[in-house]
Order: sequence, then C-alpha cells, then structure tokens
Amino acid sequence: MAVATGHRISRDEVVWAFGPDLVPVLEVEPGETVTFETNDCFTGQITSEDDVVTGIDFSRINGATGPVAVKGAEPGDSLVVEILDIRPIEWGVACLIPGFGQLTSHVPEPVTKILTVEDGVVTLNGRISFPAKPMVGVVGVATESETVSNGLAGVHGGNLDDHFHAAGATIYFPVRQPGGMFAVGDMHAAMGDGEICFTGVEIAGEVDIRFGLLKGKQATWPVTELADRWLPHATAYDYADALQLVSEEAAKLLMDEHGFTLEEAFIFLSVACDAGVAQACKPAEGFGTIARFAIPKIPACPAPFTTR
Amino acid sequence: MAVATGHRISRDEVVWAFGPDLVPVLEVEPGETVTFETNDCFTGQITSEDDVVTGIDFSRINGATGPVAVKGAEPGDSLVVEILDIRPIEWGVACLIPGFGQLTSHVPEPVTKILTVEDGVVTLNGRISFPAKPMVGVVGVATESETVSNGLAGVHGGNLDDHFHAAGATIYFPVRQPGGMFAVGDMHAAMGDGEICFTGVEIAGEVDIRFGLLKGKQATWPVTELADRWLPHATAYDYADALQLVSEEAAKLLMDEHGFTLEEAFIFLSVACDAGVAQACKPAEGFGTIARFAIPKIPACPAPFTTR
Repeated sequence: MAVATGHRISRDEVVWAFGPDLVPVLEVEPGETVTFETNDCFTGQITSEDDVVTGIDFSRINGATGPVAVKGAEPGDSLVVEILDIRPIEWGVACLIPGFGQLTSHVPEPVTKILTVEDGVVTLNGRISFPAKPMVGVVGVATESETVSNGLAGVHGGNLDDHFHAAGATIYFPVRQPGGMFAVGDMHAAMGDGEICFTGVEIAGEVDIRFGLLKGKQATWPVTELADRWLPHATAYDYADALQLVSEEAAKLLMDEHGFTLEEAFIFLSVACDAGVAQACKPAEGFGTIARFAIPKIPACPAPFTTR
Repeated sequence: MAVATGHRISRDEVVWAFGPDLVPVLEVEPGETVTFETNDCFTGQITSEDDVVTGIDFSRINGATGPVAVKGAEPGDSLVVEILDIRPIEWGVACLIPGFGQLTSHVPEPVTKILTVEDGVVTLNGRISFPAKPMVGVVGVATESETVSNGLAGVHGGNLDDHFHAAGATIYFPVRQPGGMFAVGDMHAAMGDGEICFTGVEIAGEVDIRFGLLKGKQATWPVTELADRWLPHATAYDYADALQLVSEEAAKLLMDEHGFTLEEAFIFLSVACDAGVAQACKPAEGFGTIARFAIPKIPACPAPFTTR
C-alpha cells in the first residue's frame, strides 16, 4: 500500500557509489517520509530476453536513488530507516552470467529471463510461480572516507542484498557524515538467501521510507530490526570471515546494550540465534559474502537500538 | 507429546560412527514407530559447571542410539524417517572449547554452563531465557564403504546439526546398505544455525521416530521435508564449497523430479530459495561446514520424494 509521503525523488537522481562527499538531492526532518523511485539494477538496459548482461554498460549498475540528508544527523548517531512499502512494477529480469554463481560451470553462455509479477506472484517461463517478496538490495549511507561501488557492501551498507530488507524492516545505519546521506536501489521482486546466480528478480519500482534519528549511538555495521528479531550484518570475501565479523558485532551489541558477558553472548549466539547468509554467490570475482545473525527479541535482548 | 510406539531402544545401545557394516539392535517393518533413548553428546561426562570439555574422554562423543534396520530397505531406496516427538530432560550443557568457534580468541579457557529446560523455556545463568526448540544433531544411516565418526557429516547424514530436524520433519536418507541402519543422537534443547561455539544445549532425552520406505529412488545427500519447504544438505570444509554441492544437489532434484531445466533451477534457487547454514563453527580443526537449501513447496516443485 502506497504511503502518503511528503517528498518524492525521481529515479533520475542516482548515485553509483557511496563515498564521503555525497551531495543531497533532498533534506528532511526526522519523522518525515520520502518516496524513492528506483531503477532496476541494470538501469533499464535489459528489456527483453535478447538483451544479455554481457552486452551492457557496467558503469550503470545498481544505481541508488538519493541521497537524502536528515537534519541533525551527525557522526556517532544512527540514521533510522523504516521501510514502509515497496512497489515493484509488473516485470523483472533474472540473468545467468558466465563466471558467476555455484552452477556457472553448467551454463557457459549468458541467459536473460523476463519474469512477470502479478497480484503478488512471480512467474518464470510461464510455469514456475512463487510468491513475490519485494525487497531492496542496495541501502546505504555516506562512508567515512572510502568510495565503495554500489556493487559492494561495507560498514556503510551498500549492496547488502538481504531479503529481510522488505516492508516492515527498520535499518539502523551508522552515520559517518553530517546528514547521513541515504540512498536506495536494486529492488528485487524476490530474492533468496545466497542469491546464487548473482541476480534476484531485478525490477524497477517505488519505495516509501520514513526517516528517524537516534542520537549518540551506533553500531559498526548496519543493524536491522524486524518484528520478532534483529539482524547485524557484516561482509568479507569468505563466509567464515564474514561470520566471524558479524559474530563479533553481535556479541559487542549484546554486551554493550544488554549487559551480556562475552561468555553469555558466545553461548547465546550458538544456541539461540541463527547465522545466515544474505549474498553468497561464488565464484564472483571481486565480490564478497554477506553474513547476518538473526537474534530473537527476548526480554534479555529486545534489540540494541529499538525505537518500537 | 510422547507417541505410543511399538519399540524402545535403550541409550546403552550406541554407535560412535556410521560405517558400512553396522549390526542392527532392532528390525522393524515400514510404518512402525520406535522410541530412541538418547545420551547427551558428552555421554553424561559433564554434569556440573566444574566439568570442562578438555577433561573428558573424546572417544565417547556424539553417540547415536541404534541402529535400526527397516525390512525391505535396499541400496537405491530412500529410508523415510519421520520425527514425531523429541523430549529433552530438564537440564543441558553448553561449552566453550579453546580453538573452536568465531569468538574463541576472546575465551582462551574452557567454560561449561548448565542450562535449565522447563516448560519449553531454556535459561542461561538464571537470567537469559529463550524458547526450547528440541532437535537432533546426529541422524544417519550406514555408509557405502567408509567409516565416518559421528562428529562429522556426509552423504549418509551423521552430524548434520540442522535445527530443522525437529518434531514434524521427515528426512529421506539414501539407503546404501540393506536395512538402511538408522541411528540418532546428539539432542539439543536448542541450537542456532551456525552453532558458532560448537555446542547447542546438549541434552539427553527420547525421540519417537516412524519409519517408512520409498523404493527405487534416492538423492545423494539426506533431504528433509517440512510442512512448507524441503531442504537438501551437503558438507565441505568451506561454506562456498558446501553451498556449491548443495546447489548441485538441489538443481538435480528440481530437474529429475520436477522437470526444471538447468537454467530454470539455477534462477529459481537464486530468486526464490534460501541458502542457509546448519553448522558453520570456525575455526574447528577437522570439522566441515554444513550447507542447506530451503526450497518452498510450490505447485511446480512440491518436494522431490514427498510422502505427504
């Protein structure tokens, strides 16, 4: 359901990387809502099954609409990004890309499929239908110093490709530049954990976001809150390293915000929380693996930065 | 809820490894139910927080109760194992083990915690309470030729450590020896995906299993069916390799049983199915990572071997 928002940003207002010096296209107060028109990850370069991914301009990939500055956001704060609604259009694209993904050796040539999205159902080849689960792959804020392509993820967010970044999710981004500078793109009508062929159902659409601000508190990486759990993220080339980073982050949050001892955090993460993968497409030269931890909201740790 | 079963196997009937030449302690017909008394993974060697894991006999780890032969099961068939109920006792153990797990560098000394399990709630240190989710870590059948310690997983099952192996799950094991030779152990009152400290809430208890038989059809690895999805498994040292193996297995099942093309399978796994981890504790010298794929039951692929 579309939300009545005070602002709208055209899909022509695009950034291709998150850096330290983003210039806002809009400034809002905490509490305001914004509708972002987003391009599909190929920026409209693929419109039929005859357009293959090897023939497109790779400098125009994963554009994110924005950035939006939130008044009063300063380094050390968390920018609170509540995803109110995501509305994909009626068709999307999935691709097989030579050299990418767990089954790439079986598919040496590029393949493009146009999938339909109708009444909440995605259909592949007219016969394989499954529920649409609209989500956004690229969500991020300005970095402290480096410039990171929107194909990659980092402590600023970026291409986190977490299917939990759907309507109802609230993401807490560590603010590293005044205003935060939030941008969003890379919508998927559906994407599974792992995203093993490197695409979801890539699609254009609109996203409604409500902004908030949490002063003087932040994690290292983006942390997402859902109704029943919260999710720290981290990325590294290998899954084991990404899982180590997100375990460190999760333990630190349990200790700093909820008073766990390190031993309690280590055991609790092992016996009551679920390690997971957002993107784990391999091989994928130059791209990392994104790990997350799903931590249940229990009275002992309702969520580190909850605003609910 | 305990199920009235025709048979009961004492926790004294234990195997420590799955090999090709297991000798059954019980033979049943397809359709029969059996109650397995299971030891905790330490076989009762840890009963207080003063007992640390570095002081125990490691030849008595992860014992599995059984094996049970199912009449008529022959190589090429699938042994159908329906978990009807799992009843842990009222206390369990979690350990921190030097050299094991994502946070091990922070905890150089072994730690033992006794957790209580009462009315479906597990409590750590008297203050951190979370829901019990009883499951079994070791579930397997006789191998084709090798002998595999119950600490490890393989195409026969073994230490799959998948928290979905709870009441209501049905596991399809590829039969590689006459009778199948099923055994079960390593119960956890709760365990999270990843099991990052290498233990769940390790606990003794009872498991009710109903056996079935699917003639002339099997996967390479154990495949689990739940109410709403099905889950192939695979293991390798690194997660990327384990995910490649389980992607191959999942694609083969989608193609052989549901008529998908390889391209359709690759895209469907990427956009509609969730890659996951069962056990991903690292470092853990000598132990692998267990990957699974969660494939939704949709009309195009209700489940490869469903008996529901």
